[in-house]
Amino acid sequence: MTGPFAGVLAPVITPFAPDLSVDTARYTALCRRLLDEGCTGLVPFGTTSEASSLGLDEKLSLLETLGEAEMPMARLMPGTGLCALPDTVRLTKAAVDRGCGGVLLLPPFFVKKIDDEGLYRYTAEVIERVGDPRLNVYLYHIPPVAGVGWSPDLVERLVRAYPRSIVGLKDSGGDPAYSRDVLKRIPGFGVFTGDEKHLADNLEHGGAGTISATANHNVRMMRRLYDRWGSSEGEGLEHAVCAVRRTLDGFPTVPATKAARARLDGDEELMRVRPPLLPLDDARRRELHQKLDQLKATLGNP
Amino acid sequence: MTGPFAGVLAPVITPFAPDLSVDTARYTALCRRLLDEGCTGLVPFGTTSEASSLGLDEKLSLLETLGEAEMPMARLMPGTGLCALPDTVRLTKAAVDRGCGGVLLLPPFFVKKIDDEGLYRYTAEVIERVGDPRLNVYLYHIPPVAGVGWSPDLVERLVRAYPRSIVGLKDSGGDPAYSRDVLKRIPGFGVFTGDEKHLADNLEHGGAGTISATANHNVRMMRRLYDRWGSSEGEGLEHAVCAVRRTLDGFPTVPATKAARARLDGDEELMRVRPPLLPLDDARRRELHQKLDQLKATLGNP
Repeated sequence: MTGPFAGVLAPVITPFAPDLSVDTARYTALCRRLLDEGCTGLVPFGTTSEASSLGLDEKLSLLETLGEAEMPMARLMPGTGLCALPDTVRLTKAAVDRGCGGVLLLPPFFVKKIDDEGLYRYTAEVIERVGDPRLNVYLYHIPPVAGVGWSPDLVERLVRAYPRSIVGLKDSGGDPAYSRDVLKRIPGFGVFTGDEKHLADNLEHGGAGTISATANHNVRMMRRLYDRWGSSEGEGLEHAVCAVRRTLDGFPTVPATKAARARLDGDEELMRVRPPLLPLDDARRRELHQKLDQLKATLGNP
Repeated sequence: MTGPFAGVLAPVITPFAPDLSVDTARYTALCRRLLDEGCTGLVPFGTTSEASSLGLDEKLSLLETLGEAEMPMARLMPGTGLCALPDTVRLTKAAVDRGCGGVLLLPPFFVKKIDDEGLYRYTAEVIERVGDPRLNVYLYHIPPVAGVGWSPDLVERLVRAYPRSIVGLKDSGGDPAYSRDVLKRIPGFGVFTGDEKHLADNLEHGGAGTISATANHNVRMMRRLYDRWGSSEGEGLEHAVCAVRRTLDGFPTVPATKAARARLDGDEELMRVRPPLLPLDDARRRELHQKLDQLKATLGNP
């Protein structure tokens, strides 16, 4: 049941060209850099990737691009959960066929107040239609955005029915009690926290690590925390990781994450977002960069 | 600015075959029957159509099917608002190219807390990329489900910028004060209520009519109300229309609408839904049919 992923994964930001098409050269270069910097894996098409702003064809084509760029596909966990069953099946199949180590599955998120039974049938259909023993599903629990979540009862039922396919989840619900509950019910389940603030709590309760926006610009430090958690360095690292995260508080997550990465790479092109998102304006960007610079002076090199 | 639609439009339910593919024969037959029964227009891919459960390719192919079936395309207002700009542009273009009289545009609905400015840029991109003077956009305001809505300020701004393209909206927000506000700001705007309970209020304030789930099984009566509103018959008709609507209170809208249409046509196949939705179970279906039968005995033929 334990999935193939552990550690610190980045929901990779998606660079856009001036015409708002995906800038594939910058995209593959960024993926490579993130792995070099210490990401144990990457999540293309996560919330921070503006996944919902990418068309199905674009996602299929990006998976192809990543394969052709000889990315280590087993370390990829693309988000493949869309609203419509046929679209989800198609993207999930493509991910498995390209050798992705797992997929991150959002529930269908337009209709709210979905019964567990309906969500169970949907997920069962996805697994059976993909029909591939290589499929590793991580359930994506993010009710504050999706408006629909995976209840612990439903997670247990899915794991009982499909123990080889349902191997973990990402908890972006904001309350680590959810992860703890799931880990108590299903020991060894691959539970990632969506917020590195809860990484120590996650590991303490047998979790697998973190998939967090911040990994796009602070993975070295997050990785050190993951590797040395519980050692004498652990507490200091946790403090530093949380300080970096807090720096982005009050900024919209995706534009701020892009601005932080753009600063690291000295590449303003990375700041571009697709509407309906808006980039940070100049004043806000300066404010963010200043805060990150101050923190860098305090902490060494965040 | 006044759009080409008025009256009673049905967000057509989507019939599914046992393998959950779209049953296109039943679909085109139902579209024809709804027009015969008095629908002034049809909205394929509305919320009641389980639009979010249909893949982009399926929608493109259904538009083709409707064209080949020689449906009066000018009377169609398909829902074309998807989360990703390229998908929305592609489906909207296809609708215009096939001669659809308008499109119903949901805002991108995954990310919440979207600024008006971001939504403005998104909509402007859609209109400019479609780049076709035949495009008639109706904004779809349904914040209780989408989690994102069109503020009256934003509607006004869009109409000022694109007076030929932004011609109306559908208000499924639940509070007719929103429609009244928009109609006061933009006289002649094509405002439809999503709930026929507010149809009289809508018409009284210069609105264009209703696009409501109930039109799938009660359009004759709703159409009479639209045609004779304000006459001596009006009040009685309004009472009857609301009584039919209330019969479905407490049932999940889509499965109940499908069950009500299945009863009318004596065709249980119409009840099938795609997961994550669930069909009514036998007991609930009997309960609904009984209520509708009782009402029929009271009202004549609802």
